[in-house]
Amino acid sequence: MIATGCATDGALVPSVLKEYGDAARRMLFEYLPSSEPRRYLYDLLADYPRRGGRAFRPSLCMATTRAFGGSPDMALRTAVSIELVHNAMLIHDDIEDESDERRGRPTMHKEHGVPISINVGDMLSMLAMRPLLDNQHLLGGSLALRIVEETERMARESAEGQAMELGWRRDNPQDVTEHDYLEMVLKKTCWLATIHPSRAGALIGTRGAIDPDRFLRFGFLIGAAFQIQDDLLNLVGDARSYGKELGGDIREGKRTLMLIQLFQRATPEERRRLHRFLGRPRTRRTDAEVAWVRARMDHYGCIDDARQVAHGLAGAATHEFARVYGALPDSRDKAFIEALPRWVLTRS
Amino acid sequence: MIATGCATDGALVPSVLKEYGDAARRMLFEYLPSSEPRRYLYDLLADYPRRGGRAFRPSLCMATTRAFGGSPDMALRTAVSIELVHNAMLIHDDIEDESDERRGRPTMHKEHGVPISINVGDMLSMLAMRPLLDNQHLLGGSLALRIVEETERMARESAEGQAMELGWRRDNPQDVTEHDYLEMVLKKTCWLATIHPSRAGALIGTRGAIDPDRFLRFGFLIGAAFQIQDDLLNLVGDARSYGKELGGDIREGKRTLMLIQLFQRATPEERRRLHRFLGRPRTRRTDAEVAWVRARMDHYGCIDDARQVAHGLAGAATHEFARVYGALPDSRDKAFIEALPRWVLTRS
Repeated sequence: MIATGCATDGALVPSVLKEYGDAARRMLFEYLPSSEPRRYLYDLLADYPRRGGRAFRPSLCMATTRAFGGSPDMALRTAVSIELVHNAMLIHDDIEDESDERRGRPTMHKEHGVPISINVGDMLSMLAMRPLLDNQHLLGGSLALRIVEETERMARESAEGQAMELGWRRDNPQDVTEHDYLEMVLKKTCWLATIHPSRAGALIGTRGAIDPDRFLRFGFLIGAAFQIQDDLLNLVGDARSYGKELGGDIREGKRTLMLIQLFQRATPEERRRLHRFLGRPRTRRTDAEVAWVRARMDHYGCIDDARQVAHGLAGAATHEFARVYGALPDSRDKAFIEALPRWVLTRS
Repeated sequence: MIATGCATDGALVPSVLKEYGDAARRMLFEYLPSSEPRRYLYDLLADYPRRGGRAFRPSLCMATTRAFGGSPDMALRTAVSIELVHNAMLIHDDIEDESDERRGRPTMHKEHGVPISINVGDMLSMLAMRPLLDNQHLLGGSLALRIVEETERMARESAEGQAMELGWRRDNPQDVTEHDYLEMVLKKTCWLATIHPSRAGALIGTRGAIDPDRFLRFGFLIGAAFQIQDDLLNLVGDARSYGKELGGDIREGKRTLMLIQLFQRATPEERRRLHRFLGRPRTRRTDAEVAWVRARMDHYGCIDDARQVAHGLAGAATHEFARVYGALPDSRDKAFIEALPRWVLTRS
């Protein structure tokens, strides 16, 4: 599936993530002001970023810029902005999803309450604008404004995807299809995780001389594989390295591919039971019920099948890579991007 | 207190608010996309804007642009952005404050749940960027970026003020002073309500050739008078025209000037009782307790004194008006701004 010698080197992806991730994180903390009110706002801004994370999104942005002939410095502020938006969304998502844990610790609203956490998310999201405004000094006003426009588009797509998922959770429709699921993932996950970093990175690398829609398909394929793999890890991963409660997605009623398949394959009686389970408030979903849902997923092969879908998407991403990046000169950054489809499937 | 004949005409402020407000509202709705997912997102974006409101913020922005020699059209998109940010903040504030009513109807999260409402607020806030990006066609890239920077500053100040108030509500410190209160109001209320519309309006009217810090004091004085008057209306206003539960601020534990004064003037025993009241969850604060707090405010003259403070601030705003706007040629827009200090005190 993977062609160049470089890309089969399992150490390449982690080493690029570390290099670009460290650079982006260093600058990110410089963008977090430190003033009053500290306890209720500024001290909390750095909470999620300090908990770590792979820095996948900023690294993909910087690598794409470089693969298209730019320097990683040109993309650094955009990468920082992407990571700020990502952390802002995590805070609000954790509230919206009633999540208990994030990166191995209680979620922000569990520690500091919902009101203060909504406000911290708003602030972090607003601070993501600052590096984009500073872009004008290095990239010029026109390209800087273009990146702001791209960011607004990404945020819009993300909010649409989030709305779909939140609506499904609230109203528990029984007719959500795999097609609906993939559209939701395209918006909720792929735009921020892969499409936007690729689009922005390529626009910067080419100084605006590229059609960013070229990256839609590659970003979708790899982002959807990434999301399904992430949801699988929530069911079958190692709790310690995963940093969240195992099976937490089932308890949250998260619409994963596995849950959607289960709905389709279950008997009418099982479907009613599943519907009752999802209709109760999160706190009234018992361990025994979560275990039952998990067992039914196994029974109907939902987990194996989702794994197959993720592999298929990753394979198609590798194919699409050749179309989008094939003509570029070989480079470490190009090899990094080429290695991503395999990496999203093997990371734990 | 008020000099020109025009400004004493009580109809001037409402007529300018109607004219500029209608123009801003018309364009605002054009900026709200209509696509899927409707029920969970796009239909809800227009909910708060459709409920009405005085359109004070966009009108002040447009009037300031015109008073400084620009055309109101030049400021229209910025005014729309301000109103979008305002509505986005209302949605999140209502969740953070656990408010039940907004403009005479249940708050969005009461009708649609917290998760979906957080997401709608995020979307509306992001959509506020669109008219600012479109500014580049009319104002040029440089001034357009400047207005984005101003918007980011305003949002930052607002989040700081919101953090102060939310922190006070959560932790119930007993040593909040009038000075702290006014700093909170400066950030939470004045930046969005008066300072930012004035700064942005003047920057647009002068094509960037003005120091926006000139408007800090005027904006603070009039905005603080506005906020105190608003809090007074919550205690003594007419419930129907006010659009919210009368006394709702007391039940929410909102840090008003009246509450802060009551804390300072109460006996140790009363202070303990007040502290216990504020320490309970909002839903466990009884009508009888709310009435008791209200009666103690009367007893200690907190309401009359707050009214005096509001009058003092409005008087100082009139004085400051002469310093900031005095040299400008007379115009309907200048007279509108001059009339605002009296208007904020007399509106009901």
